[in-house]
Amino acid sequence: MDDVLLVRGVRPWGGAEADIRVEGGRITAVGAGLAAPEGARVIEGAGRIAIPGLVEAHTHLDKNMLGLPWYRNEVGPRLIDKIDNERLNKRRLGIEPGTQSMRQAVRSLAYGSTHIRSHVDVDTEHGMWGIEGVMATRDALRDVQFIELVAFPQSGLLVRPGTLELLDQALAMGAEVVGGLDPCSMDRDPKGHLDAVFGLSQKHGRPVDIHLHEPGEMGGFSMELIVERTRALGMAGRVVVSHAFCLGAPEMDGLIEAVAAAGIAIMTTGAPSRPVPPVAKLRRAGVVVCAGNDGIRDTWSPYGNGDMLERAMILGLRNNLRRDDEVEMALRVCTEGGAAAMGVEGYGLDVGCWADLVLLPAESVASLVVDRSADRMVIRRGRIVAENGVAVVGAA
Amino acid sequence: MDDVLLVRGVRPWGGAEADIRVEGGRITAVGAGLAAPEGARVIEGAGRIAIPGLVEAHTHLDKNMLGLPWYRNEVGPRLIDKIDNERLNKRRLGIEPGTQSMRQAVRSLAYGSTHIRSHVDVDTEHGMWGIEGVMATRDALRDVQFIELVAFPQSGLLVRPGTLELLDQALAMGAEVVGGLDPCSMDRDPKGHLDAVFGLSQKHGRPVDIHLHEPGEMGGFSMELIVERTRALGMAGRVVVSHAFCLGAPEMDGLIEAVAAAGIAIMTTGAPSRPVPPVAKLRRAGVVVCAGNDGIRDTWSPYGNGDMLERAMILGLRNNLRRDDEVEMALRVCTEGGAAAMGVEGYGLDVGCWADLVLLPAESVASLVVDRSADRMVIRRGRIVAENGVAVVGAA
Repeated sequence: MDDVLLVRGVRPWGGAEADIRVEGGRITAVGAGLAAPEGARVIEGAGRIAIPGLVEAHTHLDKNMLGLPWYRNEVGPRLIDKIDNERLNKRRLGIEPGTQSMRQAVRSLAYGSTHIRSHVDVDTEHGMWGIEGVMATRDALRDVQFIELVAFPQSGLLVRPGTLELLDQALAMGAEVVGGLDPCSMDRDPKGHLDAVFGLSQKHGRPVDIHLHEPGEMGGFSMELIVERTRALGMAGRVVVSHAFCLGAPEMDGLIEAVAAAGIAIMTTGAPSRPVPPVAKLRRAGVVVCAGNDGIRDTWSPYGNGDMLERAMILGLRNNLRRDDEVEMALRVCTEGGAAAMGVEGYGLDVGCWADLVLLPAESVASLVVDRSADRMVIRRGRIVAENGVAVVGAA
Repeated sequence: MDDVLLVRGVRPWGGAEADIRVEGGRITAVGAGLAAPEGARVIEGAGRIAIPGLVEAHTHLDKNMLGLPWYRNEVGPRLIDKIDNERLNKRRLGIEPGTQSMRQAVRSLAYGSTHIRSHVDVDTEHGMWGIEGVMATRDALRDVQFIELVAFPQSGLLVRPGTLELLDQALAMGAEVVGGLDPCSMDRDPKGHLDAVFGLSQKHGRPVDIHLHEPGEMGGFSMELIVERTRALGMAGRVVVSHAFCLGAPEMDGLIEAVAAAGIAIMTTGAPSRPVPPVAKLRRAGVVVCAGNDGIRDTWSPYGNGDMLERAMILGLRNNLRRDDEVEMALRVCTEGGAAAMGVEGYGLDVGCWADLVLLPAESVASLVVDRSADRMVIRRGRIVAENGVAVVGAA
């Protein structure tokens, strides 16, 4: 059996060397000198550090351009320029959501991401094209990687009549999360937008994840409306606000406390060119913080490779995290934070958790982030699913 | 002869495929179908992009910790915490400037940096220790890499009596550039500090490079004092201000114009956690902008690997450079900008320039920055000095 193994001599989170026993895909023992279960595969860790699987808590699997000819970006500077350019050119450029999501998901897996939350465009021009494509990838990879879909109104919800019904349809088809986008600046009707989003959440019993790029006081106002609805509906632990640039503005301490009290999680990319939610302060306030690569190599931006260790580095650089304990915090955001925000069951390195592991050679947890070794072994529920940058998808 | 070669079928700056002929270490022809000079080595470019050698315009070769045991950073948050921690622990930690500068310089060369400007600590506790060590590396690598030293008062100049005399000594020994540091916040006497720095510059006939971390109006004031001295002494093209975080503050357009008019170059790391000089705006104003990795893996911060392509990516992320022409600008800062700021003679891909080249497989200049291929051939004055991430130092 592939999901029975003994991982010998690894350092969980950089601590003392230990063996990890896995049975039925779950960790059944952690300690020194463990015996291998009968028929178990034995992996020699050789002092590698073991961390739980990386969690990509915010990306767009449906619209990367991996494997396509280089896209020469000549797009205008405004948000709406990027949104319109993408929607109008997606088919012409051959950005087929099924193919592209598979390319990115497999690459992410090779980097060690065992869990992905993907926003997927839903709009009146493409309908369920993106949802169907990413669902096909999700289903094909089910045994090796967890993928969940956010039905995401990238081009607006109320401003594009018909979109609400399409979101409803996507959720009925099985998209796991209700998405939203800039209630003021994009949809021009914050109350209407958020009532619609939370209404779908109530109807389908699904969590919510809202892109909030709005800066300063405008974003703060939208955040207040999200806090009010989260509290009124008892949705603590079921709402993520992505980007939340407004929390990087001055004098937002009161709002951060309100976000913490409401049980809203914050997703950050650590965007170097924007005000960003302050990771350490949010965590001190009790807010769950997760991270994602957002779009990689797409019509918006050429950057990004899907590696959540590179994202941890960027979080660290953006938040000026230099001490070893601070760099480790950045990595915890990219692992445990994502799992908590997404409500992943049985996540971690404790006995009873699913054996979703990444093993890397590194002197310390901080050096693991800084060096981002290509030599990674990725284990999902006790099976090796990637090694040395190559996913062994399908080799069950 | 090693410095006579024909590089066949490369794309200079991503343009049309061409051959590059090199004789006596210099480019003597660029064009299609060139004949190989007699006895020339022929390199098949196979469509690789050719760029001029990367220029690391600001680092600290003397105090990285490459190859030493992992340093657990528990240092306090203030600038002075980092300065004092480093000075007091440098010997204990085995940060030997000669050894460490060689490690970093060779690694930088493998990444494609043919030119390095290194600030080197000069203080009353270590005297010429750093200067002597980096000079040894500079001299040992002279045939494969250009290195110049900035005599740098990291622990303060006037606030630590005796330092001025040590800087004078370092310059007399052959350090190429006069360094300075935060005239207000560190040295508490901006006029005194800058008069001393520019005085040394006049005495030794050397250019100036001043670390200016001071934010906002304070930094703006120090910058004004630097502008005044640069103009009064006719030192256009001979002064670099490094970091210049103050230029990232609001309402600095007037100061940017003054910096441009004075012929002062600006060095930026694109620090994600700080206000930074706006690269595009500075270049539009006519300011020479260069970039550096600053300290890598040292007691200040664990980040950085010495790769100037990674630095170009960080510049791009920090300055929100997404279009292809913008990403190319980031790379020009890390090549031509550095050469201009350092006054490097014969730099570039034109006929007559020194044949300092990096060849990489890439679809476009932007993808070259985004992908940062490890497959790099580095040529210095017509000789291959690194290939596939390994410097062939000594194999003359």
